[in-house]
Amino acid sequence: MNDSVFDWLDAHAEDRRKAGLTRRLNPRRPDDGLLDLAGNDYLGLTRDKRVSGAAAAAALRWGAGATGSRLVTGSTELHAELEYELARFCGFPAALVFSSGFAANLAAVTALSGKACSIVTDSGIHASLIDGCRLSRAEVAVVGHNDPAAAERALATRRTERAVVVTDTVFSVDGDLAPLPQLMAACRSHNAALIADDAHGLGVLGDGGRGAVHAAGLAGSPDVVVTVTLSKSLGAQGGAVLGPRRVIRHLVENARSFIFDTGLAPASAAAALSALNILKDEPERAQRVRDVAGELSTRLRAARLHACEPDAAVISVRAPSPEAAVQWAEDCRAAGVWVGCFRPPSVPDNISRLRLTARADLSEEDISRAVKVITETAPR
Amino acid sequence: MNDSVFDWLDAHAEDRRKAGLTRRLNPRRPDDGLLDLAGNDYLGLTRDKRVSGAAAAAALRWGAGATGSRLVTGSTELHAELEYELARFCGFPAALVFSSGFAANLAAVTALSGKACSIVTDSGIHASLIDGCRLSRAEVAVVGHNDPAAAERALATRRTERAVVVTDTVFSVDGDLAPLPQLMAACRSHNAALIADDAHGLGVLGDGGRGAVHAAGLAGSPDVVVTVTLSKSLGAQGGAVLGPRRVIRHLVENARSFIFDTGLAPASAAAALSALNILKDEPERAQRVRDVAGELSTRLRAARLHACEPDAAVISVRAPSPEAAVQWAEDCRAAGVWVGCFRPPSVPDNISRLRLTARADLSEEDISRAVKVITETAPR
Ligand SMILES: Cc1ncc(COP(=O)(O)O)c(C=O)c1O
Ligand SMILES: Cc1ncc(COP(=O)(O)O)c(C=O)c1O
Repeated sequence: MNDSVFDWLDAHAEDRRKAGLTRRLNPRRPDDGLLDLAGNDYLGLTRDKRVSGAAAAAALRWGAGATGSRLVTGSTELHAELEYELARFCGFPAALVFSSGFAANLAAVTALSGKACSIVTDSGIHASLIDGCRLSRAEVAVVGHNDPAAAERALATRRTERAVVVTDTVFSVDGDLAPLPQLMAACRSHNAALIADDAHGLGVLGDGGRGAVHAAGLAGSPDVVVTVTLSKSLGAQGGAVLGPRRVIRHLVENARSFIFDTGLAPASAAAALSALNILKDEPERAQRVRDVAGELSTRLRAARLHACEPDAAVISVRAPSPEAAVQWAEDCRAAGVWVGCFRPPSVPDNISRLRLTARADLSEEDISRAVKVITETAPR
Repeated sequence: MNDSVFDWLDAHAEDRRKAGLTRRLNPRRPDDGLLDLAGNDYLGLTRDKRVSGAAAAAALRWGAGATGSRLVTGSTELHAELEYELARFCGFPAALVFSSGFAANLAAVTALSGKACSIVTDSGIHASLIDGCRLSRAEVAVVGHNDPAAAERALATRRTERAVVVTDTVFSVDGDLAPLPQLMAACRSHNAALIADDAHGLGVLGDGGRGAVHAAGLAGSPDVVVTVTLSKSLGAQGGAVLGPRRVIRHLVENARSFIFDTGLAPASAAAALSALNILKDEPERAQRVRDVAGELSTRLRAARLHACEPDAAVISVRAPSPEAAVQWAEDCRAAGVWVGCFRPPSVPDNISRLRLTARADLSEEDISRAVKVITETAPR
C-alpha cells in the first residue's frame, strides 16, 4: 500500500483555500423554498408537469437507460423524433443527440477539425469547446473576446487549407452575445466553417426561442454547425449538434464522444421533446425570459450595482473579490434568494461575480424580492 | 454562403464506404421482439419496474433536469445519496457522480495527472480514457495489451516524479480482464497510483457484483481510484469516480467535465440508486450473468466459432472481415437475435467481431436460441 501517492492533492487544496477558492457541493432538497436565480431552467419547464410527466412515461415505456451506445442498442424512436423536431424547430436539415451538451461540443469540434485544420476561437468560449480544441490536434488560434477583426486576421494568416471558427453565441459567464454576423462574414471571406454553441440562446433568443443563430439569419446555412444543450431551456439533460446532413452523418461515423458513449436516457430525451413542443405552442415564453432579464438588470443598475446589460437570460454582477462574491451569494441565500457565484477557474478573466439567470416564470413580485435582497446584501 | 467548406466530408464518407465501414443509426421501437445480446444491461434491470418506477417518481418529484452544474444548482439529495451508497457498496471512502461514464473518465484521468505526471496505459483502454490522456498534458506511455511487465518498465524509466497507471478492468471490446494485482504491484514498487475503469466489472464481478477492483482486494486502497458507469449493470445513465476522500474533493474543485457540465438528471440518479439496492438484495444476479456468459461461450466454441473465454459478461466472436461481420449481425437480427458488431475504429486491433453480452435474465431457452442462430448464420 502506498498512502502518499495523493499527498500532492493536499498542497493543491491548501493553495485553493488560501486563495478563497474552496468549493463545496451543497445538495438541495426537492423544495427548499428558495427563489432560484442560479439555475439554467430559463423557461421554467423542468418541473412543468407536462415535461416531468413525459420523462416519467418514457422511463416506464422504454426503461431507465438506453442500454448501449447510439450505434448499437442506444437509439430509440424517441431519439430519432427528438432529432427530427430539434432540427426542424431550429431550421437545420439534421440533428444528432448526445448524452450532454459537453459531449456534443467535444464531438462537433474534434470531428470537424483535425490535424489539417486551423481553429480560431474566442478567448471566452465554454470549457467543453476548449477541451474539444485541445483534443482536435488542429492548430488553435485564440483571439480576444468578441473581436471579429482579430478572428478574420487569424483566418487570413492560417497555414492550413481548412479552418473553423468556434464560438459561444451567448457567453456562459457574462451572458453577452457573440458578433455572429461579423464572424460569419469573416468565415465566408476565408473559406471557413462556423461552429456556434447556442446553449444559452435556444429557448431565449430568436423567433419563438429558435436561438441566436436563427436570429442572425444563419440557421440552415451549409457552412454553419450549431450545438445546443437539452439541459437549460429544455429542462432535461443532453445536448445536440445541428447542421447539414453530411455533417451529422460524419459525426455518427467519427465523433468519439458519440460512438463511445451510452445513448441519452429515454426519460431525458422525452422531457426535452416535450419542452420543445411546449415552446412551439407558447412562443411568448422566450420573450418573457428576455423581459425578465432586462428588468432585473435595469433595476440592479439603478441601485448602482455593476450588472451587465443582458443579451439573453444571464446577468452577471461584478464582485470585488472571490471572498466577497461568496459572502454576497451566501447572504442572498440566507435571505431566500439563490444566485450563482462564479470564481476562478470558472471565469475567463479572473473576476469573481454573481451570476443571475432570468426565468420565464418569475413574477413581478419575485423580481422585486430578488432585486431587494441582492441590493441589500451587496458588499460596499 | 459557402457550400463547399464541408466537401471534404464526402471524400471521407466515400473512403469509409469503400472499406465497408459505413455506419447507420437504427432506432428501435419499445418492443421489437428481438432477443437482445447487444446491450449492456447486464443485470436485466433497465426495464425492471422498480428501476423504471424510481426514475419516473424522481422525474415527478425533482423535475426532468438537474437545472445546473453540480456546484451551482445541480446537486440534489438524490445525487448525494447515490454517491454515498455507491462508495459504500464498492468499498471506497467517497464517490462523485457524473453525467456519463465518459465524463467520469475524462475527469479522473485529467485531474489526477497533469504536466508533472506520467501516465502509463494499456493499448486497449476505452476511448474516454484515451481522450482523458490526450487532454491531460501528461507524458503518456502506451504499453502492449495486458503486459504488466511493460507497464512496470515504463514506470521505472519515467521522467516525472508522479505517475498513474490507467486501465480498464474488463476491456470493453473483448471482455478480457486486466492483470490488476500485477499492475498494482508495479504501481506500488514505483510510487504510482492506479486508475481502473470498472464499467464492465460493476454488477458482474466480485462479491455480489462489487466489481473487479473489489474482487482483486484493492477496493478502498489509498492509491486506487475507480471509475464506473451507471449505464450498464445499473441500467440508467451516468458515471462515477470512487476513491479516497481527498481525490473526490480534488475532482469537485478541478475536474472540468464535472465543473462545466449540468448534473445528472434526477431520474437517472434515482434509477441507478434503485438498481444498486436491488443488486444488494439479489446478489445472485452477478453470479448469473457470469454463468450465462460462460455457457454462451462454451457452446459457441463447441460449434467451432472463435469465441473468447469470457472473464465477465462480454463475449467477442471473431469475424473474417468488416463486411462479413456486418452481414453476420444482420442475419442474426433477421432471425430475431440482436448482437453487437464492432469494426474499426471501435476496435483496438482492426479485427472486426461480433460482440455478445450476457444478461442475468436470459433463460436457458434464450441461450439455446442465441447459440443456434449465431451458429447457423456464421460465415464459412
Ligand atoms: C455555453 C455552454 N456550452 C455547453 C455547456 C455544456 O452543456 P451540458 O451541461 O448540457 O453538458 C454549457 C453548460 O453546462 C454551457 O454553458
Ligand atoms: C470501459 C468503458 N468505459 C467507459 C464507458 C463510457 O460510459 P458511458 O457510456 O456511461 O458514458 C464505456 C461505455 O460506454 C466503457 O465501455
